[in-house]
Amino acid sequence: MRRVARALYEETRDLPIVSPHGHVDPRILAENAPFSEPASLIVQPDHYILRLLYANGVPLEALLKSEPRRVWQLFAEHYYLFRGTPSGAWLDYELNEVFSIRSSVSAETASPIYDQISEKLQSPEFRPRALFERFNIEVLATTDAATDRLEHHCAIRESGWKGRVIPTFRPDALFKISSPGFDALGARDYSGLVRAIADRRAYFKQLGATATDHAVLEPYTAALPEEEAERLFQRARQGEATPDDERRFTAHLLMEMARLSLADGLVMQIHAGALRDHNRAVFERFGPDMGGDIPVATEFTRNLRPLLNAYGNDPRFTLVVFTQNARVSSLNPAVL
Amino acid sequence: MRRVARALYEETRDLPIVSPHGHVDPRILAENAPFSEPASLIVQPDHYILRLLYANGVPLEALLKSEPRRVWQLFAEHYYLFRGTPSGAWLDYELNEVFSIRSSVSAETASPIYDQISEKLQSPEFRPRALFERFNIEVLATTDAATDRLEHHCAIRESGWKGRVIPTFRPDALFKISSPGFDALGARDYSGLVRAIADRRAYFKQLGATATDHAVLEPYTAALPEEEAERLFQRARQGEATPDDERRFTAHLLMEMARLSLADGLVMQIHAGALRDHNRAVFERFGPDMGGDIPVATEFTRNLRPLLNAYGNDPRFTLVVFTQNARVSSLNPAVL
Amino acid sequence: MRRVARALYEETRDLPIVSPHGHVDPRILAENAPFSEPASLIVQPDHYILRLLYANGVPLEALLKSEPRRVWQLFAEHYYLFRGTPSGAWLDYELNEVFSIRSSVSAETASPIYDQISEKLQSPEFRPRALFERFNIEVLATTDAATDRLEHHCAIRESGWKGRVIPTFRPDALFKISSPGFDALGARDYSGLVRAIADRRAYFKQLGATATDHAVLEPYTAALPEEEAERLFQRARQGEATPDDERRFTAHLLMEMARLSLADGLVMQIHAGALRDHNRAVFERFGPDMGGDIPVATEFTRNLRPLLNAYGNDPRFTLVVFTQNARVSSLNPAVL
Repeated sequence: MRRVARALYEETRDLPIVSPHGHVDPRILAENAPFSEPASLIVQPDHYILRLLYANGVPLEALLKSEPRRVWQLFAEHYYLFRGTPSGAWLDYELNEVFSIRSSVSAETASPIYDQISEKLQSPEFRPRALFERFNIEVLATTDAATDRLEHHCAIRESGWKGRVIPTFRPDALFKISSPGFDALGARDYSGLVRAIADRRAYFKQLGATATDHAVLEPYTAALPEEEAERLFQRARQGEATPDDERRFTAHLLMEMARLSLADGLVMQIHAGALRDHNRAVFERFGPDMGGDIPVATEFTRNLRPLLNAYGNDPRFTLVVFTQNARVSSLNPAVL
Repeated sequence: MRRVARALYEETRDLPIVSPHGHVDPRILAENAPFSEPASLIVQPDHYILRLLYANGVPLEALLKSEPRRVWQLFAEHYYLFRGTPSGAWLDYELNEVFSIRSSVSAETASPIYDQISEKLQSPEFRPRALFERFNIEVLATTDAATDRLEHHCAIRESGWKGRVIPTFRPDALFKISSPGFDALGARDYSGLVRAIADRRAYFKQLGATATDHAVLEPYTAALPEEEAERLFQRARQGEATPDDERRFTAHLLMEMARLSLADGLVMQIHAGALRDHNRAVFERFGPDMGGDIPVATEFTRNLRPLLNAYGNDPRFTLVVFTQNARVSSLNPAVL
Repeated sequence: MRRVARALYEETRDLPIVSPHGHVDPRILAENAPFSEPASLIVQPDHYILRLLYANGVPLEALLKSEPRRVWQLFAEHYYLFRGTPSGAWLDYELNEVFSIRSSVSAETASPIYDQISEKLQSPEFRPRALFERFNIEVLATTDAATDRLEHHCAIRESGWKGRVIPTFRPDALFKISSPGFDALGARDYSGLVRAIADRRAYFKQLGATATDHAVLEPYTAALPEEEAERLFQRARQGEATPDDERRFTAHLLMEMARLSLADGLVMQIHAGALRDHNRAVFERFGPDMGGDIPVATEFTRNLRPLLNAYGNDPRFTLVVFTQNARVSSLNPAVL
């Protein structure tokens, strides 16, 4: 097993990285400012780390609101919890290979390691773009709201830097017609909404986008009659859409997204099966993406059938369906 | 792992093959005519092969409607796609062991391999019955519609050939009371239908059948009051049965099949969990069994409880439940 | 794999056993009488053994109603069925390590092995408490009905013996408000029931309990308004509660149990996913726990969300959720 894994790694380690999906903030590469220090770089933005620490009794307040060196100390004191987890393998690799840290992380070594990393982060070779090049990244796709003006992507293009960073069109918020903050892109009727979405897709494509991305609990797809889509849209504009309206509207808009993909060639990606913000108290105090998501069993076969029967046999259409791998997820132990 | 697999294989390789379920056409063994050429023998009837090729962009028209040598060429050009799949292991074995093909299959070798196989197929030792004997098949069970006259099974028996080929009673079509082509075996009432089914079972048994086989999406079982079964049957005769009627009628008839098994001793087999003809366009152009089936999660515990509580403790009753193994199926990569 | 397993075993084999959940009858350790003979010790109380034998055609009557030596003979004749199963590994270990049986179990060796074990069972070192000490058990938690007077636990404490045997509070029967034998602990209203439960918890805790345990099919949790809980309780007292009432009442009482755990510190354990008494004929003739339970797919994420959102962020609360591991269960082959 390990022998096969090593052989595969040897054959692939020198290939460039093509990253089709991720959550790197493009501002980092647009501004290319030094990362400030280890806690805000490694601990605080990683919901896998936050979750495992919280599950073992470390208060989120202490991790998110303390002075950085204190956060790092807490993280180091609990570093043993990550042994044998995917996050642990990732962290070991990052500290060893990227930051040349040779001592193991613990309460005692926390402070000197903090200083070592902080010092490195101030040097030119640890600037974001330098790391991008060192990691041999051929292309990095970010994930961006449909309404995003993409000013950081513009800035990267205009800067003359050669790194290829492209946006991905994520219109989830436009589908949430029962949410208070529903934004219809200024459209007054349903066909106006679809036109506005098509315009946004064109803008994203102009800045290099090759794909859209859709996060849903269930990948439910179903076409509505045009007048029913219109009716739901008008209910949404008046703030009267129900969660069931939203479910049907989303199912219909996913069909529309597939149809638009035939025309503009953007690959369609679906992320299904993450139940978001399961822990209400954590969500209310700290917001989303703080370790409160849980994978749930998801039905793909029946749910995607309408979309695939409508567009799946067209050679212009490419659909990538991401699943939550419960076996891998469960290696990162965490409480419900 | 491999060592254990090899040891198991060594211990079992000389045992005869007992094939309790399969889809070999008995006509092949009744007529014992030479197979005509490789494409219609190996590529076109195999929905796993069709599906993987189609999923990689090869049009089904090209695979099903082209001249045979062209079909084989297309298959050979994409042979690398089967690496590491169960179908690939099967194909490698078949070409190597059965046809003594020593070169690997590719665009370049397609034509000479086609000729080699074609030539072999014309020799006496590649006639169907000769292969049956070479493969050391002790018994081969086919799968046959309840209405089948079994003339090929009769012909095999009358031919004096000693190969044991037996039918299996598959009455699925008789349960589909909401289908336009529903055939009631000439019965005018429900008890007449059950009598007609029992007669057909007796006929199958006379020709060697040892089992029935039932393909269902969910193995739902539930007894109906006699008068309700009658009512559903009459609705079916008038073409008024709904899909829900069919679901309940099927659940009831599965109970009846178990009851008849107690009397005639036929083993009851259930195949559950294949969602048929998922790809509507493929189904409409090319019909069933063209790679459009997908395994779905299936509930057995509650669904089979009524049947097992009614008949499962009777030592005369044998039930074999086939499941769709999603882990093995998923090794044969294919699009939804 | 085996090397890792052996290394782990070597590191842990000398540690004491801490058994947080099990079904040992405390009377055995209170009375400390010799076990009478092998069949009633090893075969008859083990529903895994009964089930596999029954699935292979051995009548339960023969296993449960025959003379002990005959039961042992039947067991020995079918001992080969346990090869490669978890039960088989367990049995091999028990016979080898505990009883020093060196011959393998079969029809021929059944009788001498029966005699060897019987003889050993009469010696002082095979008394229950001697085995408890030999097995290096630090603490053993039993599972006890909420209404249990715990006289055996009292007797153990008063006996002066130092073995630590503690009760676990299992109030399932109090939640079954649609069962004919529903026992409300003498309460006249809902708040009286909760007070009575709290009293019983305190009594269990006094005798060493550190946990509660709840067996449910689905771990459904949901708070009811106080007056709705009262209404359901009154329906229960009048014998009018329906299964749906029971489902909602149980969901609410699980919330109450979590709330009481905050106060008294008892760890809350949930066992979900066993469909009990699937085989009705076996249940009616022989009662529960005779091999008729089947694991079913269970939803935890949505079902436990109300309970976790109400109490899960409180550091005083500890919840242990046991799942049915279908992969391990399926290694013990058995009929539905």
